[in-house]
Amino acid sequence: MDKLLIFKIGGKVVDNPQSLESFLEGFAALSVPKILVHGGGIIAEQLAKRLDIPTEMHQGRRITSAAMRDVVTMVYGGQINKSIVASLQRLGCDAIGLTGADGGIIRAKRRAPAPVDFGYVGDVTEIRSDLLVKFLELGLTPVLAPLSFDQEILNTNADSIASRLAEALSSHYLVHMMYCFEQTGVMLDLKDPESLIERLDLPYYKTLLQAGAFTAGMLPKLEECFRARQNGAQHIVIAEAAACLAHAEGKPFRGTRIEL
Amino acid sequence: MDKLLIFKIGGKVVDNPQSLESFLEGFAALSVPKILVHGGGIIAEQLAKRLDIPTEMHQGRRITSAAMRDVVTMVYGGQINKSIVASLQRLGCDAIGLTGADGGIIRAKRRAPAPVDFGYVGDVTEIRSDLLVKFLELGLTPVLAPLSFDQEILNTNADSIASRLAEALSSHYLVHMMYCFEQTGVMLDLKDPESLIERLDLPYYKTLLQAGAFTAGMLPKLEECFRARQNGAQHIVIAEAAACLAHAEGKPFRGTRIEL
Repeated sequence: MDKLLIFKIGGKVVDNPQSLESFLEGFAALSVPKILVHGGGIIAEQLAKRLDIPTEMHQGRRITSAAMRDVVTMVYGGQINKSIVASLQRLGCDAIGLTGADGGIIRAKRRAPAPVDFGYVGDVTEIRSDLLVKFLELGLTPVLAPLSFDQEILNTNADSIASRLAEALSSHYLVHMMYCFEQTGVMLDLKDPESLIERLDLPYYKTLLQAGAFTAGMLPKLEECFRARQNGAQHIVIAEAAACLAHAEGKPFRGTRIEL
Repeated sequence: MDKLLIFKIGGKVVDNPQSLESFLEGFAALSVPKILVHGGGIIAEQLAKRLDIPTEMHQGRRITSAAMRDVVTMVYGGQINKSIVASLQRLGCDAIGLTGADGGIIRAKRRAPAPVDFGYVGDVTEIRSDLLVKFLELGLTPVLAPLSFDQEILNTNADSIASRLAEALSSHYLVHMMYCFEQTGVMLDLKDPESLIERLDLPYYKTLLQAGAFTAGMLPKLEECFRARQNGAQHIVIAEAAACLAHAEGKPFRGTRIEL
């Protein structure tokens, strides 16, 4: 089986034009089949603010109202996705930007309105991997916005999309998934750079989990990683964007490898 | 050669959710290879207004500033394109939304800044028809936003995109192009519904042109039609959206056929 690289870039990389361009240069230069999943960042929030659309939160998680869904469709599916595609095309990478609605590629189920109504938010149920494989075989590089489809467009976590892609495509490729992150990797103590966990396997993860070692933001990310690893992804790395690129090029890197 | 339908819908159809949904129902039901090109409508202008972005015009044509380019990328490439794709998917049509940057499908040249600097506006130079043919062969229905690519995303007239697509794809398909229009068709007198020109051929067009019979809005549309007709498009019709759909289904319709 051929190797497939799946990169997920989040808010911090997307928000800063220079860090984004620098990442995209490295990404475009990778000459293997690859997919990029991007998150949202603060651009959607900034636009909502300019349009006087209230951004509601529940326990640190965004509630997607109808007006906010339009904003994320414009910003994630339009502005961010297309500017990444244009940059990659300029860099010689034959990128194609997609939301979950395009080709019905990321099917989801809208989250139940109880106990908390998160609004237009979907959880991935199915990846149309046959179509993604066709695109990859045509030499295209899919760039996926964090939007899924359940009869309509839904806001969806980019980590989950990357993870479900890794699972679905592992029957066609040896999947290497890179979660680009604003920190060096998974840390025991965020204030201590020496506390980087270079290799996090499932038993160690469970021990640390019981000890309450992970933040509320880190926990779902790690759950996604272990789920994807158990369901077929061959290699998973959590590291800074530059380190993820180094790893993809087979160079030494500083970050966390997720193992079973 | 197989038949390919290319529909272009403009502002008036796009702006009204009911007329759009009604058109999309008919379009989705057409069981032949097809492409939809959509224009912009007033949604971009409304968003620009809410964001206090000035919309500059020169002799009735929009100047696309950098801020306005971001707006049209969001609105045309995000909101409108993705809501059309979601509607078509819901209606069972396997749509995929694209801008000219995606797969480098619509290459353009940014318009020279003299005599008038129209800003981020591009004129189509090349259609990547090989990729569109692959998509059509996969059973996909491309939905194209009026945005082209010349190292960056450029605002581009939807009529021109439809016309260049018709030309480029006529070496692979028998192309039928339908310009959906807010009027019954090309009229000698806009106030007189009886003045519909049912068949407009090149000699008659030239006669009418010399007599100054066409409005400034109609003229470029007709030039696009005749250019596409001369460069390979088999059938071209200008009519209301419902009439274009009737024509596509092989039913009688009221509108204008462009002939040579």
